[in-house]
Amino acid sequence: MTTLQELDTPTALIDTRRMQRNIERMQERVKTLGVRFRPHVKTTKCLPVVRAQIAAGAQGITVSTLKEAEEFFDAGIADILYAVGMVPGKLPQALALRQRGCDLKIIADNVAAAREIGSFGKTHGSVFEVWIEIDTDGHRSGIKPEEEALLEVARVLQESGMRLGGVMTHAGSSYDYDNHADLLAISERERAGAVRAAQRLLEAGLPCPVTSIGSTPTALTAEHLDGVTELRAGVYVLFDLVMRNVGVCTVDDIALSVLTTVIGHQEEKGWAIVDAGWMAMSRDRGTQKQKHDFGFGQVCTEDGAVLEGYILSGANQEHGILSRSGETDRSIAERFPIGTRLRILPNHACATGAQHPGYQAMRPDGNTETWPRFYGW
Amino acid sequence: MTTLQELDTPTALIDTRRMQRNIERMQERVKTLGVRFRPHVKTTKCLPVVRAQIAAGAQGITVSTLKEAEEFFDAGIADILYAVGMVPGKLPQALALRQRGCDLKIIADNVAAAREIGSFGKTHGSVFEVWIEIDTDGHRSGIKPEEEALLEVARVLQESGMRLGGVMTHAGSSYDYDNHADLLAISERERAGAVRAAQRLLEAGLPCPVTSIGSTPTALTAEHLDGVTELRAGVYVLFDLVMRNVGVCTVDDIALSVLTTVIGHQEEKGWAIVDAGWMAMSRDRGTQKQKHDFGFGQVCTEDGAVLEGYILSGANQEHGILSRSGETDRSIAERFPIGTRLRILPNHACATGAQHPGYQAMRPDGNTETWPRFYGW
Repeated sequence: MTTLQELDTPTALIDTRRMQRNIERMQERVKTLGVRFRPHVKTTKCLPVVRAQIAAGAQGITVSTLKEAEEFFDAGIADILYAVGMVPGKLPQALALRQRGCDLKIIADNVAAAREIGSFGKTHGSVFEVWIEIDTDGHRSGIKPEEEALLEVARVLQESGMRLGGVMTHAGSSYDYDNHADLLAISERERAGAVRAAQRLLEAGLPCPVTSIGSTPTALTAEHLDGVTELRAGVYVLFDLVMRNVGVCTVDDIALSVLTTVIGHQEEKGWAIVDAGWMAMSRDRGTQKQKHDFGFGQVCTEDGAVLEGYILSGANQEHGILSRSGETDRSIAERFPIGTRLRILPNHACATGAQHPGYQAMRPDGNTETWPRFYGW
Repeated sequence: MTTLQELDTPTALIDTRRMQRNIERMQERVKTLGVRFRPHVKTTKCLPVVRAQIAAGAQGITVSTLKEAEEFFDAGIADILYAVGMVPGKLPQALALRQRGCDLKIIADNVAAAREIGSFGKTHGSVFEVWIEIDTDGHRSGIKPEEEALLEVARVLQESGMRLGGVMTHAGSSYDYDNHADLLAISERERAGAVRAAQRLLEAGLPCPVTSIGSTPTALTAEHLDGVTELRAGVYVLFDLVMRNVGVCTVDDIALSVLTTVIGHQEEKGWAIVDAGWMAMSRDRGTQKQKHDFGFGQVCTEDGAVLEGYILSGANQEHGILSRSGETDRSIAERFPIGTRLRILPNHACATGAQHPGYQAMRPDGNTETWPRFYGW
């Protein structure tokens, strides 16, 4: 057991009390909304975090890579949705998982991919469960709810003997909003679009047992989820400054920070140099276009108290530049002497976590333990 | 042995022929300039790459973390400069390396750190070799050549029995320029500033055996390095789109790319969706403010031919949005059908490499082998 004060820097800290509170908040939401919850584990890729999500009531997980599916299946989690469009080259890996007993669901949003899945499944005597990806906000992938392609993809899959598992959508554009009215509108659009797609399948005599939607902002905003069976969300478990600007959490909900040490100053510029550069924070500048730009992160004391106005204004690979936003703090060297330890709240928890081989999970008593995380494909 | 066509996507490819050409180009430069060369290995953190740099004539390495020092020392490289300002908390790790026989040099740019190093060294009976960091362009850390602190830091170190190893500077602001005249001016400023700092130490009767300078742009631009003993550079080994915009390489020199597969389309928008998102490319948008913005990367065929005008215009975690810049390509789905494999050249080789557990090193005969790389601290 290590205390916070003994940790080397830079390192990624998880405040487990805040994390647990975030998990419980989302479980309360899904209970109220009357749906199942399938968290997206791409945010942390960390087994103790995912175990806490499942212990709180999550049913199955969402993954962004087949490596995540393999790692979490090996840890005993079988109900897995791989939420990136399937391509021929990845079918052998998906097949191997199913053959080992993993209840892997894959997705498709076009006829070409559906044909490949069907043909590969038939050749290998395997029935893939396929969900159809729906585009409800134009931000990325998917078939629009009213498009003809929806029924074509479903029929291609059914005719080749695959299992139609349902429809899924992700309103990723919800990250671009920052007020309740807009968030409510995009939430309703996400819900209504997925439900409409499911309805079209059912009307055509095709099965659609699952209607799955979600993103952290819409999950925390929707007033009802009529017709939806399942919610997905990822970053809510740790939150970050982007979500604070979107308006679905406060700075005090952010459970991830990077512990750092002051290594130098440029006094006339009001800079302290710290050992958390972009390698520790990631290059994510997600707050750049939002209402409050936090640079590469919000500076806090080692104990986690927010130091209002102090941000990581610049970042090289292993050097961060800490300054007061909007003015030059000429007493920066007195305020943060060499060796001072600070915490930096990140713009984007998924990107910052990915830079670290593990998290230091900090318990309320101040002791920490290492929670490994993995990366790669 | 695997061929390019058999590799899973996304994956980070190194074109070894280009890499070798880049290594030889830099060694030719240092030969002409009459200095030693100490490559910065933070770019790749990959032993086969570093072995190729040493085989070509590099003398010692530069690292950005003590983990890099440990890994490369364990691989038999003893002459190592840790080029990030030392702080008290990292001295035990540095001491352990020296005690195991590593010829580790550390740096300082302030009296407080110098005192800590001296005091820790004396207490543990160890003589640290310390180089003083000089600020020649105001972009980050270091003491200005004419500042009084230069002599103070040197005296504190000498009086506590540490070894004054020399001065070092890095003109990181050279990344901000894009024409020869400006690059020449910043190169000369870097050289002259470091040489002036060394001169002041010598005039004060203090030793200064090494005068070390360098960044990829200045290393490739300087007309002479009179008074300099050693050059450092990192990204030159792979190059990237930022360096192409700076003007010190062409797109055909870029040895790193990310292999990816087309997984979907949004035809009316002219988008192809690929399986290289920011997790594979990094969130680095280094070309955003440069004369040519490549989005998240330049698209090439699987064989590496540049597809002029096609860039990765957007990136989510595991989804990249590929489009034609400036116009909507409505035949994008015909041009890049589902399953098409492409390569994406990165903005920033150091950031993109860091997202991957290893590189696939591609030899001229088309066969590839895995070159592991490490991360973390």
